Amino acid sequence: MGERTIYTIGRQFGSGGRQVGKALAERLGIPYYDKELLAMAAKDSGFSEELFHSADEKPASSLLYSLVMGNYPMSSGTLGFNEMPLNDQLFLIQSNTIRKVAKKGSCIIIGRCADYILKGNPDLISIFIHAPLEARVKRAVECYEVPADRAEEVCLKNDKSRANFYNYYSDQKWGMCRTYSLSLDSSLLGIEGCVDEIIRFTELADKNKNHCI
Amino acid sequence: MGERTIYTIGRQFGSGGRQVGKALAERLGIPYYDKELLAMAAKDSGFSEELFHSADEKPASSLLYSLVMGNYPMSSGTLGFNEMPLNDQLFLIQSNTIRKVAKKGSCIIIGRCADYILKGNPDLISIFIHAPLEARVKRAVECYEVPADRAEEVCLKNDKSRANFYNYYSDQKWGMCRTYSLSLDSSLLGIEGCVDEIIRFTELADKNKNHCI
Repeated sequence: MGERTIYTIGRQFGSGGRQVGKALAERLGIPYYDKELLAMAAKDSGFSEELFHSADEKPASSLLYSLVMGNYPMSSGTLGFNEMPLNDQLFLIQSNTIRKVAKKGSCIIIGRCADYILKGNPDLISIFIHAPLEARVKRAVECYEVPADRAEEVCLKNDKSRANFYNYYSDQKWGMCRTYSLSLDSSLLGIEGCVDEIIRFTELADKNKNHCI
Repeated sequence: MGERTIYTIGRQFGSGGRQVGKALAERLGIPYYDKELLAMAAKDSGFSEELFHSADEKPASSLLYSLVMGNYPMSSGTLGFNEMPLNDQLFLIQSNTIRKVAKKGSCIIIGRCADYILKGNPDLISIFIHAPLEARVKRAVECYEVPADRAEEVCLKNDKSRANFYNYYSDQKWGMCRTYSLSLDSSLLGIEGCVDEIIRFTELADKNKNHCI
């Protein structure tokens, strides 16, 4: 690994992406940020941690929500921070938290548009972990205790929500190859195999730095 | 590598995906099929090779084309092979050619929905190679002699055409992570780095066979 590598991991629900991130962090001895980001963002902002949890990886407000919150811009002009929909405010705070942890040194960040927020950072390796639906359903039932008769629906709904969040806040598409440095089908490699593959990818990318295709 | 591995490679225009396929075939000493498939399909069918070239990775006919060709189904019922739009006939012939070469043993097949045609084959590793637009433009100008002022347009148009072809003939989405076993940004690894990574992936997948995530 180079002097500093920031890994971001996007993942389909049930693909084991979070476990890959945790195992990679342990193997490399670097910090791992998932729900931890919410507590940090809460501390940074003064908003409650519960509020960040309730908005986690959910896209902002529809027009209806904005109207309910009373912050729909009735006159033209740019919105100030306090006039933004609450989820947008939380997203901006969380983005700053992500930039702050990435400045500290090598780390793993799970989801939350981190790859988009850190786009252009030369130390970034953005990863997407996926798996066929049947493998994800199995994992959801066995590891997350999702009832078997609802597991498929839970996987698909969570993916939809993550895609909506990502596509709302970025100008990229969630789950498209071109959005990531590397994407892997975890059902073919297993968790530890994915970790091996990511480490190998990092070594090869380091070796290739300053070369071109 | 296991006893037999069939690699299919989808690729963004200018990403070097074809070169990765060629280099991988050389490294492993296995056959490589790209335009070669067209000559084989021509030989298999009696249609001319030129016809396969003109239809290569282009989706079937619009309604207009069908009407012009006089093969729009005016009565209900399933179309026979000879009543199908010509591009659909060529696609079916080419699919059979792809299944035939895959049966012979390990090989590399570039594009042409080969991953979809061979879906469910336990020896299949499907790969997608991509790169940022600026790297692809550079490659298009330097390697394919595309005029610099048209290179971006050529890259985007070719990708659009490949996506249309793939999405028309398969029930999967071209360029989505979940469609492939592995996807790589070639600008980070270089051609030989991609080859190293694919070989490593295959070894890890072999090791993980019969395990689950």
